[in-house]
Amino acid sequence: MSLICANADEEYSVIGLDLPKEEAYWKIAMINQGQLPVISSDIKVDEFFEMAKSKGNLLATHDPSCLEHADIIVVDVNLDVDHTKADQKTPKTFDVNISFFEEAIISISERCKKDTLVLVETTVPPGTCSNLVAPTVKNGLKLRGLSTEKVKIAHSYERVMPGPQYIDSIKNFPRVYSGIDKKSAQSAREFLQTVINTKEHPLTELATTEATETAKILENSYRATNIAFMVEWTKMAQLMNINLYEIIDAIKMRPTHSNMMYPNIGVGGYCLTKDPFLAQWALEHTYKSSHQLNFSLSGVFANKLMPQQSFELMNDNLQGSNLSIGLLGVAYGPDITDTRHTPVFELSEMLEQKHNVHYQDPFVKFWTEKSVDVEQDLVCFFNKKFDVIVFSTCHSFYKQNEKIINDYLSSNKQCQIYDLVGIIDRLKLNINAKTDRVFILGNGCSSNS
Amino acid sequence: MSLICANADEEYSVIGLDLPKEEAYWKIAMINQGQLPVISSDIKVDEFFEMAKSKGNLLATHDPSCLEHADIIVVDVNLDVDHTKADQKTPKTFDVNISFFEEAIISISERCKKDTLVLVETTVPPGTCSNLVAPTVKNGLKLRGLSTEKVKIAHSYERVMPGPQYIDSIKNFPRVYSGIDKKSAQSAREFLQTVINTKEHPLTELATTEATETAKILENSYRATNIAFMVEWTKMAQLMNINLYEIIDAIKMRPTHSNMMYPNIGVGGYCLTKDPFLAQWALEHTYKSSHQLNFSLSGVFANKLMPQQSFELMNDNLQGSNLSIGLLGVAYGPDITDTRHTPVFELSEMLEQKHNVHYQDPFVKFWTEKSVDVEQDLVCFFNKKFDVIVFSTCHSFYKQNEKIINDYLSSNKQCQIYDLVGIIDRLKLNINAKTDRVFILGNGCSSNS
Repeated sequence: MSLICANADEEYSVIGLDLPKEEAYWKIAMINQGQLPVISSDIKVDEFFEMAKSKGNLLATHDPSCLEHADIIVVDVNLDVDHTKADQKTPKTFDVNISFFEEAIISISERCKKDTLVLVETTVPPGTCSNLVAPTVKNGLKLRGLSTEKVKIAHSYERVMPGPQYIDSIKNFPRVYSGIDKKSAQSAREFLQTVINTKEHPLTELATTEATETAKILENSYRATNIAFMVEWTKMAQLMNINLYEIIDAIKMRPTHSNMMYPNIGVGGYCLTKDPFLAQWALEHTYKSSHQLNFSLSGVFANKLMPQQSFELMNDNLQGSNLSIGLLGVAYGPDITDTRHTPVFELSEMLEQKHNVHYQDPFVKFWTEKSVDVEQDLVCFFNKKFDVIVFSTCHSFYKQNEKIINDYLSSNKQCQIYDLVGIIDRLKLNINAKTDRVFILGNGCSSNS
Repeated sequence: MSLICANADEEYSVIGLDLPKEEAYWKIAMINQGQLPVISSDIKVDEFFEMAKSKGNLLATHDPSCLEHADIIVVDVNLDVDHTKADQKTPKTFDVNISFFEEAIISISERCKKDTLVLVETTVPPGTCSNLVAPTVKNGLKLRGLSTEKVKIAHSYERVMPGPQYIDSIKNFPRVYSGIDKKSAQSAREFLQTVINTKEHPLTELATTEATETAKILENSYRATNIAFMVEWTKMAQLMNINLYEIIDAIKMRPTHSNMMYPNIGVGGYCLTKDPFLAQWALEHTYKSSHQLNFSLSGVFANKLMPQQSFELMNDNLQGSNLSIGLLGVAYGPDITDTRHTPVFELSEMLEQKHNVHYQDPFVKFWTEKSVDVEQDLVCFFNKKFDVIVFSTCHSFYKQNEKIINDYLSSNKQCQIYDLVGIIDRLKLNINAKTDRVFILGNGCSSNS
């Protein structure tokens, strides 16, 4: 978002503010030294950074006094949910940690100008903008003897897809926004029109900030539930020795069924794994309701168990222990560099209890959450002799390097192959191997077992 | 299907066979007397019947000896599930009544030619064609001293939508098929090509009959789950006083989210209310597995409770008892004439405990399941003075008769209006009434309460 603002139609001076913490401090330094602190598979990320550098309108800092000068403050502070203890039986066992977000809003309220636009982009529990952000900011202005009449509070959520379309998923994508009042909504619209390609992707204004806050969570809950729906059918397809991929393809021909998901190793990233909890938390804390979003929460639980399902498929067919296993892909999704909450983590932990697991990913050099090195080069990775090769992320890189993979499999005829992400079906990856050593999650015909 | 076969590219002699039971006997007589025994909102149904009549190639009978002469036997016998006792806590409490279906197959096996094509279109528990139909038919041929080499057993499911596109939903819609062997699949394909517009809607062949049987059930389970997903968010929207319709519209702009459903009074018809149970039954009985399709079954349970949700919205806002309530629409869906499992039934039963309820539906004259007369004429219906008007089916008829509705509401200013099917939002029905007497399911902004 800062790169897009720095390269907007309007000439903005963009300052990125973060806390002087271990995770962020070095990023601030890097940006100011002209280096991009993130790796992306989208070349536009580099291009936008270089353009901002040449214009000199992108800085980073940990000094909140920059807030004093801002006309527009875009809030992208994370708001985390700890749901590690939640399960199907005790769905209410989760904590929403709203304190970092609240501290950020307080910090804004102590410094912002009286006519600033505070645009919240964080995924928040519904009701947060009107019940927390607005009163906090207005109170901060009052304490400083300033009028609260001209301050603007708005909400608009990103639909970021970290991958080869990273920039476009913000700049060239439909956007939803709202304000706590008319002038806030108008101000948000005027700002968004300068940074987003709204000619081709018209903005949608909703009536209240509660509506946009709910929209974001509903959107992600739908996707999480849609994924969860397929988990039990994946298992059924294996039990019945049928190929779920051809079935889903036949069904998806109907426009009313086009959003149906394919079997997969699991759900990762920052959003789908937590967003439904924010709605449940809001119901209890903000709306004092006992209403339960059991169905959506069940979806999140079902998704959590997906790596276990992949492990079972492998465990049922692996012979012996101490096998050498090569996992192709550790990022949580196709063509992305992000390993946060990747389902490959759960699978790898289970496999490592009995086997030796090695990791390859074209976009990941060091897997932070696991503290292990990841081989980026496929040829180097294949210098090792594996008993098992696992497709654990559906990177198009593997389709592009089909020949290297097939050469390896041809010279290692005993090597079992597990496709946990449907890469053979979805990317038409042509595996030169006998069926009886290929196992595909959700395709019970893929092997004899 | 018989109308479409009677009007196919190939000249077929079509004989409809049913049991001489109370529900069916009169239909057989009507067809043979040149009268259509069903009411449809699709004019093509009448047209196709008239064309068949003039060609004289459509008969009906209860005499199974007609099976002796059939080249092709299309099986559309119903296969029912009793799940009235199943709930979220005891999901296994349901019975699949496969006996009628089995009797029909036995009847075929005792009479069919040795090279007939038996095309099963019934929604069956996966595994039925290969484990029940094929052995039964082959055994019947053997008992009659006939070869089993040339008999063909195939499966293909209809995607019937009973409504104004009834005929097109069979004839001009993508079809999936399979056979128990290559010659069966080929024979099914050749037949379907003569009755369905396969030039514009190419056929999809799946590898096994298990695959197509599962496809049908998965397709309907997806839809049922997709509907169920929205139930809890409907309640949440009401608690939060937000309008779920504008939120869903904003989300559905994303192609990946285009299948999202709107709030509704409930799910009816013959398929969505039972199909997931057929899969669960097959897992236990055919595949001897303890695997549970909990998520899909939960969807069916959630949908069963939808009329209760509509009732609660009404009950929370209705003042007093013995109110006169006019329900507009008793069919289970927009522009259809079918009342089987209509959610309006559950709602009406609850309302009738305290109030006087009257029914109107342009397509229903007598509501069989409830044994009550239904007024088809809207003007006659509005001769009565109602305290409450309820939109319970989203018939486009009500949009077409907007003026009659608004005239009535203008002269009955105290009459409350409940929209339980999103007709105001989805058909842009323009209601001339103050907001505080309009209540919309899933729109917490629709009234002050």
